[in-house]
Amino acid sequence: MSEQTSANNYDNDNIIAKIIRGEIPCHKVYEDDKTLAFMDIMPQATGHVLVVPKAAAVELSDLALEDATAVISTAKKVMQAQREVFNRQGIVQMQLNHAEAGQSIFHYHMHLIPTSIHELGKHANQNADHSELAQLATQLAAAIDA
Amino acid sequence: MSEQTSANNYDNDNIIAKIIRGEIPCHKVYEDDKTLAFMDIMPQATGHVLVVPKAAAVELSDLALEDATAVISTAKKVMQAQREVFNRQGIVQMQLNHAEAGQSIFHYHMHLIPTSIHELGKHANQNADHSELAQLATQLAAAIDA
Repeated sequence: MSEQTSANNYDNDNIIAKIIRGEIPCHKVYEDDKTLAFMDIMPQATGHVLVVPKAAAVELSDLALEDATAVISTAKKVMQAQREVFNRQGIVQMQLNHAEAGQSIFHYHMHLIPTSIHELGKHANQNADHSELAQLATQLAAAIDA
Repeated sequence: MSEQTSANNYDNDNIIAKIIRGEIPCHKVYEDDKTLAFMDIMPQATGHVLVVPKAAAVELSDLALEDATAVISTAKKVMQAQREVFNRQGIVQMQLNHAEAGQSIFHYHMHLIPTSIHELGKHANQNADHSELAQLATQLAAAIDA
């Protein structure tokens, strides 16, 4: 099998790496030893959260199973919180592999978007109001802790 | 926390349950003790594969971490095979939770679609030619075994 896709070059200066290191702030929803969840600053719907492993991994092919399991565990917590806070059940879980798929930040990140697949992409991405994102992050974090 | 989303009623007669039990045929790409991967018969792009746990789980909130890990492990194998067979790197990984998100079959299924998020949904879904699906499944299965 080709090695091309199983050992991507990881750029330590990508924006998610900087967020994990605390060099760039984020609106944090949840954190544990292996994962971090925070608000997407260009939400495709209200409450759009990203879950990332702390381990360096460009995409799925680079992600160790142990870290993938941790991401899923965190995703389940976040999804439950989104449903509680936004009082809607539909959550699109999505993750893009490679620039050809539309991946633009080269650290594995799982999208959890309170929307329908039929609505996704109909709204132009735009930066959200940061005070609103901060408030949503606080609400979601509280729902996880509850 | 609400129990509503963590214990969905599982319908044993959903189409994926029937596929897992062998009551309905599929174009199989990969199978192990915990997972099954097969061609989506309404592909959003050539080579669209579904990965499912054999365990009964409506969606992510119902999926045990052990089964989620198995799904991810299988997804990594399938993605590598898709890249080899179709000679393209972009793979959209997607999974819908609840009818509100557009989920229409109520057994957890992860989509692995060789496409770009910018192309997704632009093509009307239609049933694919089954002889073509059979051929693609054979090619992918061979790439996983290699």
